[in-house]
Amino acid sequence: MTRFRLIVEFDGRPFMGWQRQAHGPSVQQAIEEAVEAITGEQAVLHAAGRTDAGVHALAMSAHVEIARGISAFRLSDGLNARLRPLPIAILSAEEVAEDWHARFSCIGRRYVYRIVNRRAPLTIEAGRAWQVAVPLDAEAMDAAAKALVGRHDFTTFRSAQCQSESPVKTLDRLDVIRDGERIEVHAAARSFLHHQVRSMVGCLQLVGRGKWSADDLRDALAARDRAALGFNAPPDGLFFVEALY
Amino acid sequence: MTRFRLIVEFDGRPFMGWQRQAHGPSVQQAIEEAVEAITGEQAVLHAAGRTDAGVHALAMSAHVEIARGISAFRLSDGLNARLRPLPIAILSAEEVAEDWHARFSCIGRRYVYRIVNRRAPLTIEAGRAWQVAVPLDAEAMDAAAKALVGRHDFTTFRSAQCQSESPVKTLDRLDVIRDGERIEVHAAARSFLHHQVRSMVGCLQLVGRGKWSADDLRDALAARDRAALGFNAPPDGLFFVEALY
Repeated sequence: MTRFRLIVEFDGRPFMGWQRQAHGPSVQQAIEEAVEAITGEQAVLHAAGRTDAGVHALAMSAHVEIARGISAFRLSDGLNARLRPLPIAILSAEEVAEDWHARFSCIGRRYVYRIVNRRAPLTIEAGRAWQVAVPLDAEAMDAAAKALVGRHDFTTFRSAQCQSESPVKTLDRLDVIRDGERIEVHAAARSFLHHQVRSMVGCLQLVGRGKWSADDLRDALAARDRAALGFNAPPDGLFFVEALY
Repeated sequence: MTRFRLIVEFDGRPFMGWQRQAHGPSVQQAIEEAVEAITGEQAVLHAAGRTDAGVHALAMSAHVEIARGISAFRLSDGLNARLRPLPIAILSAEEVAEDWHARFSCIGRRYVYRIVNRRAPLTIEAGRAWQVAVPLDAEAMDAAAKALVGRHDFTTFRSAQCQSESPVKTLDRLDVIRDGERIEVHAAARSFLHHQVRSMVGCLQLVGRGKWSADDLRDALAARDRAALGFNAPPDGLFFVEALY
């Protein structure tokens, strides 16, 4: 068996999410079926993160084991040919050690959440950003975000479906950067809870429109209660950027 | 009659182009129908540029005359509501003088052409960039592009359907800039011939892959013959960026 690491880019809109689902298309299933079409093997794909329906990835990291001899180059080209016309692309494939694991070896994950802050609806970026019509104070959002950085119990920002053993996570980075009508929220941590980035962005947006103060955000975190959550941002703007090893 | 200037963003994929066509949807028709739905008036929209099928706009400039009293703010909001779910957005509307003309008053037009230079197919940007699998030398492209800047007879880079009176145009800027796998070609001129940007980009791509030298590009320009054209780049990567007045 040879273990391959795959770097995967995808547009999340047509999928129920990364993970294989009984009742709809997933990125995992699409790639596993492409592997089977090429190798004749039923392979299982493991990923650094399991993104939700509608969430995108610029460089998801995954691995798969294949018994049949095939070069990494032919594997990525073959998968891309099979995956058309689905919006999933294998950016690269490489052989890795047998004990390398896309999920368990991962020591850091980065996300970016894209907001387009304008009154007009989205066209070119529809489904790939969150349009917020009300003017947002990105500096206030950035300042408030700093209260979430560090080691905290993030129960407030965790979905009911979250399978993580502990709600305590260490957030390494949460920066809000404006460039014209575009606002990007950059988040980095060893790992995240389910819905954590979208929940944090939803609350930062309340700060940006002046409905919440920085103290309100701090209080929501301290509450350790999902009921204290202000708002869960839509999946459209969320991109898995990178997994670190 | 009040004349309004509209700044329009659109994703060109579902349209036959800007201009109204007998046999398919156009951006012009969609906006004119939205104006009629709001005002009851059959209005004619004039634009700074008439983009082709599949070509996008970040900020097309257009004007329309409306007899019924309506504020610019209500006009843009009303148009955006009517245009949903089409990927056309009115970014702004403002009243302009009666003699202001989106096309004839325009003194400069800017385009950007986006190439993604990688082996993997596009996902998130499918239809909104040109994927070129072969490695391109962007510096060689940028150096060669300078031969096209200035006042020239651009017959080589003009489509058979071009309605311009003269093939002589002054190209103010043609820069090729690489950022990782992304290459952007920036073009600016008072006006362009039909297919001129795509034709120039198609030939620059031949330079980038080493099939053409800078001299070959210069010779193609000097030939003043459409048959000397190397390649016409697809519409996917072309964006109308801005009209100057």
